[in-house]
Amino acid sequence: MSAIEVIKTRRSIRSFNNKAIEDDVIEEILDMARVSPSGGNRQRWKFIYIKDSNILRMVKGCCPGFYGDAGGAIIAGLENEADTLKTRSNSTIGLLDIGFATENILLAAHALGLGGCAIASFNSSCISKIIDSPENFIPVLVISIGYPDIQPTMPPKKKLSDIVYINSWGKKWRRLENRE
Amino acid sequence: MSAIEVIKTRRSIRSFNNKAIEDDVIEEILDMARVSPSGGNRQRWKFIYIKDSNILRMVKGCCPGFYGDAGGAIIAGLENEADTLKTRSNSTIGLLDIGFATENILLAAHALGLGGCAIASFNSSCISKIIDSPENFIPVLVISIGYPDIQPTMPPKKKLSDIVYINSWGKKWRRLENRE
Repeated sequence: MSAIEVIKTRRSIRSFNNKAIEDDVIEEILDMARVSPSGGNRQRWKFIYIKDSNILRMVKGCCPGFYGDAGGAIIAGLENEADTLKTRSNSTIGLLDIGFATENILLAAHALGLGGCAIASFNSSCISKIIDSPENFIPVLVISIGYPDIQPTMPPKKKLSDIVYINSWGKKWRRLENRE
Repeated sequence: MSAIEVIKTRRSIRSFNNKAIEDDVIEEILDMARVSPSGGNRQRWKFIYIKDSNILRMVKGCCPGFYGDAGGAIIAGLENEADTLKTRSNSTIGLLDIGFATENILLAAHALGLGGCAIASFNSSCISKIIDSPENFIPVLVISIGYPDIQPTMPPKKKLSDIVYINSWGKKWRRLENRE
């Protein structure tokens, strides 16, 4: 599949079969997070790959938004510098960086026949406790990952002409209105 | 190129040649933002494509981080509901959504022979004024886009074994330490 096809056919996967995730496959997927862009190339992210089935069960228990028996999960988060600990804020740039890396993970998974779902609905302190992470690590997303059971259909999406303006706010680009 | 190759070879482009961006090419790139995942499938994003060279010059003037004579730019931002206007906050999920969509834009651009750079360093009220956007629209990133003049080399990246832990914080995955 071309990259464009991979982007177009990626779906959030919430139902998995019981095929185990091979180590070399998840390694390749995680490496796509590594090469993501990040603000000022700071790369202040960490990815905790949950492979152990008992720990995975505990992680699921902290995530109301985690559906399906995924073979594994990746906890993606930001490691703040010690001196910014007091703010504990997820900076705008840090969150964007996690977004870039997570999209790469989801696309790479799909390209390699797997799938997953980025989950923001979880209890952060519960996750921190399970993985025993320090205070300056902020879990941002839990990404379920595994081999899809079924390929869902595309959820309803806005039309391109409704989300794109040209040159200024509210100005529709006529050529987009002729699209499906 | 496969999706994996596109992810691996994407670079932030800050030097462009003067080839104009074809409308059908940018339309395809913008469509990859449309099909990105978003929290709860809310899709509360807008993308303003700056094609007009005078407006593009003004946008550049608000962006100290905008390098190179890009053929165009995309302003990616969040449209808040009117009733959340008072917070004007960039919610975590909204920022992650812009991250997902922006990575898709950058990958699609690269797959189609173009390139760009996600720029967070800009004067937000200056951008809002130029595009005449309402108060409830928050510009999050300016994405330069065009045909690359030169393909930069990969900037220094951390080793995979330094950013990935297995099952719990600080636990290195031995197999990753044997990588380059």
